[in-house]
Amino acid sequence: MTTLSTARPDPVVAAPPRLELRTPAAIDVFTRILTHGPIGRIDITRQTGLSQAAVTKAVTPLIVEGFVVVDDEQQRGLAPGRPVYPLRVMPNSLLSIGVKVNADEVIGVATTMRAEIIHSVHLPVADTSVETIVTAVVSAVSSLRADLGDSAARVAGIGVSVSGDVDTRGGVVRDSALLGWHEVPLGRILADELQSPVLIENDVRALTIAEQWFGVGVDAGTFAIVTIGAGIGCGLYVNGDVVSGANGVAGEIGHLPLAPESYLCTCGRHGCVEAVASSGSILAAIRASEERPELSLQDAIDLAHAGNASAVAAFDRAGRVIGTAVAAMVNLVGPEIVLVAGESVANYDLYETRLREAFAEHAFGSAANARIVTTSHTFDDWARGAAAAVIRATVRGEQMVAA
Amino acid sequence: MTTLSTARPDPVVAAPPRLELRTPAAIDVFTRILTHGPIGRIDITRQTGLSQAAVTKAVTPLIVEGFVVVDDEQQRGLAPGRPVYPLRVMPNSLLSIGVKVNADEVIGVATTMRAEIIHSVHLPVADTSVETIVTAVVSAVSSLRADLGDSAARVAGIGVSVSGDVDTRGGVVRDSALLGWHEVPLGRILADELQSPVLIENDVRALTIAEQWFGVGVDAGTFAIVTIGAGIGCGLYVNGDVVSGANGVAGEIGHLPLAPESYLCTCGRHGCVEAVASSGSILAAIRASEERPELSLQDAIDLAHAGNASAVAAFDRAGRVIGTAVAAMVNLVGPEIVLVAGESVANYDLYETRLREAFAEHAFGSAANARIVTTSHTFDDWARGAAAAVIRATVRGEQMVAA
Repeated sequence: MTTLSTARPDPVVAAPPRLELRTPAAIDVFTRILTHGPIGRIDITRQTGLSQAAVTKAVTPLIVEGFVVVDDEQQRGLAPGRPVYPLRVMPNSLLSIGVKVNADEVIGVATTMRAEIIHSVHLPVADTSVETIVTAVVSAVSSLRADLGDSAARVAGIGVSVSGDVDTRGGVVRDSALLGWHEVPLGRILADELQSPVLIENDVRALTIAEQWFGVGVDAGTFAIVTIGAGIGCGLYVNGDVVSGANGVAGEIGHLPLAPESYLCTCGRHGCVEAVASSGSILAAIRASEERPELSLQDAIDLAHAGNASAVAAFDRAGRVIGTAVAAMVNLVGPEIVLVAGESVANYDLYETRLREAFAEHAFGSAANARIVTTSHTFDDWARGAAAAVIRATVRGEQMVAA
Repeated sequence: MTTLSTARPDPVVAAPPRLELRTPAAIDVFTRILTHGPIGRIDITRQTGLSQAAVTKAVTPLIVEGFVVVDDEQQRGLAPGRPVYPLRVMPNSLLSIGVKVNADEVIGVATTMRAEIIHSVHLPVADTSVETIVTAVVSAVSSLRADLGDSAARVAGIGVSVSGDVDTRGGVVRDSALLGWHEVPLGRILADELQSPVLIENDVRALTIAEQWFGVGVDAGTFAIVTIGAGIGCGLYVNGDVVSGANGVAGEIGHLPLAPESYLCTCGRHGCVEAVASSGSILAAIRASEERPELSLQDAIDLAHAGNASAVAAFDRAGRVIGTAVAAMVNLVGPEIVLVAGESVANYDLYETRLREAFAEHAFGSAANARIVTTSHTFDDWARGAAAAVIRATVRGEQMVAA
C-alpha cells in the first residue's frame, strides 16, 4: 500500500497506487469483493466457481497492498460458530473523478473506489464549443483535486461522460447532437491537459456501469435503465455486462419510431419517441396549444397538475409512448428490472399511470412480469457514472487514454 | 473413453460417455476447442486468459477420455518452426438429437458434437394436441436412434424446440400460440417416454445457440438472427451469451408495434410487425386485394415476381416494416452482424431492397454500420438448433429434464 507523504510537493502528477490484477480469476475475485463486500471467502468461492486455493492466491496480494481488508475484529463473536472474516475493499485506497458534460453545465464529482461521492462541483458553461467545454472540465477537475488535497494522488483516472455516439476505446466523441460535436478527440485533449489517464464514455452507459457495480445490478441478473429528460436514453445490462453496441451505439430507445409520423424529431427523423416524450417536446406541445411561447417547463408541469387539458394531454401522450418504448425494449431484451429514471424533476405522477398502462398493453407474454421501478437521478449521479466507469476500467485493466 | 460393445442389447438405455467439466476453466477450455478447433494451446491461453498450466490441466483428462484429440501427425512439418499440435474435439464422442415442432410437421436430426447433421427425419402431424405431438416426437427420436444403431448410446440428450414462451429450466412450454399450448410440461412427458435427458428450448433461441457455437458467433462479438416466415422472431447474442430474457421472453421483434394500428395481429394486438410481414399476413393481404381466397403462398410470390401491383405492394410493405424492426433492434442492442434468415422460401428479392432502405432510414448514427446478411434456413436447421442447445447444456453442465 502506498502511503502519502504530506510533504509531497505535487500530488497531482504522482502516480496512483497500482492495482494490478493479472489474471481473470484475480479480476473476478476483486470485483466480487468490491461489489458484494463485506463478503466471506466461501461466498466468493461459491459465486465465482473458483477453488478456495485460487481465491486465497488472488486475495493475499490485495491485502498486502492495502486494497482489501479483513473485517476480523468486527465479526468475531457477533455470530455463533466459526468466525467469518469477511473481506471488503479499502474505499479510499483508490479514488476516481467523474465529469458529466451538459449543454449548459459541467458537473464533476470525486468518489471513493465504491463510487461514493466525496466532493462535487458544478460549473456553468456559456457555449458548447470544444474549447469552452475543455476549459470547464479542466477547472472542475482542478477544483476537485484541490478538495482532495494529498489524496488527489490516489485518483486512478478522469472519466468524462457525454451524450451521443462515443468511441470509448479511442476516447473520441464521434457524434453528439447535444453538443454539436463530430469526431472530437476529447480523450487525447484532456489527457494532455490533465496529465492523467482519461476515459470518455457515453453518459447513459456510464450510469449503467454505476448501477451494474454499485446499484441494482449487484443483485439483478439483467436490468435496464431508461433515462427521461431532455433526451430519452436506455442502458442495458445483459449476460454479465453493460451492452456497448458493436459500433458504439446501443440503447437508443429515444429514437425508436413508435410515435406518429407527424412528429418531427431533433435528429431529423419522424415519429421518434423523443419527438413526443422529451421534456423539450412536451413543453413545445403545451406552448403551442396554449399559445404561450414564454412558458417554462415548470410552468408546464404546474399547468398539468392544475388539470389544464392540453398540458395533461401532452404528458399523457409522453407517458404512453415511453411505456410503449419500454415494452418494445423488454420484448426484445427481457430485463428483470427496468429503472425509469427522471432527470431531477419529480413529475412522474403526470405520466406514470399512462406509462404503466401502455407497457402492460404492449408487453408480450411473461415479459409483462418485468419490474418497472420509477426513480429520479440528479446530475451528480450522471457524473458518478463517469467515475464508476473509471473504476471498472481500472479493475479490469482496460486501457484509458494515457497522459 | 467408453467403447461400445456391438453385442450390447439395448444401446438406447446405456448411459452416454460422461463429459464432466468440473471447473469454469475446464468448461472454457473445452468450449474453445469445440468451437474454434483445431486450435493450438497457445491460442487457447491467449483467448481464455488462463495460464498454460491451467490449460494443460484442463486438456489432459479430455484427451485421456477421448473427447479431444491432438492433431500431431497432421501438422508436423506443414509449417516451419516449432510444431503446433492443435487440439480438436472427436466429433462422434458425443452425439445429440434435436427436434423442431411445427404446427404441421415434426422434424428431427441426429448430429455430431459439432452439430453436423448425420441423419434427419420429417413426420407430418394431423393436429397440434399434446398427445399427437408427443407421439410424433417419440417416433422421430426412435427413427433417429435406429439410424444411429449402436452409436445411439452416445446421444447426450434430446433437444426439442418450440415456438413461444418456454421455461427451459423447468422444461415447460408456458405459451405457444402456434401450437395452442399453455403450461405444457413437455420436458417431463418426453423424458419419461424417451428415457433420456430432455431439453425444451424456444426455437429461435435454439437457432441462435447453433449460430453462437457453430456459425457466425464463432468470430462475431455480437450478432442477431432475425427469422422470417410464419412468424417473425429474433435471437440475440450479446456479451458472450444468447439473451434468454429474465422471464423467458426476449427477441420478440415480431410484436414490436411498428405497423399501422389498423393491422390486427394473431396475438390480439394491433400494429405488430407480424400483422404486416408474416407470410400469412402477406398472403392474406394479396388474397384480399385480388379477391382470390384460393391463392397459395407460392401463387402470391409468383404474382409479385410477375409485377402484379397489389402483390408487389404487400411484399414492399413487409420489407419496410421488417427493415424498421431490424433498425429498432440494432439501435437498442447494437449487434455487429444481423442474419436475416428466411424460412426455406427464396423470395428475398421481393423485399430485400425495401428492408435495407427502411433499415438505413431508421438506424441511428454508426448503428447503420451493422452488417445485414440475408440467408435462408431449412427446417433441418431449426432442428439442428435444438441439438446444439443439448450440446451446449452438456458442455456447461446445465441441467436438462432427467429421465
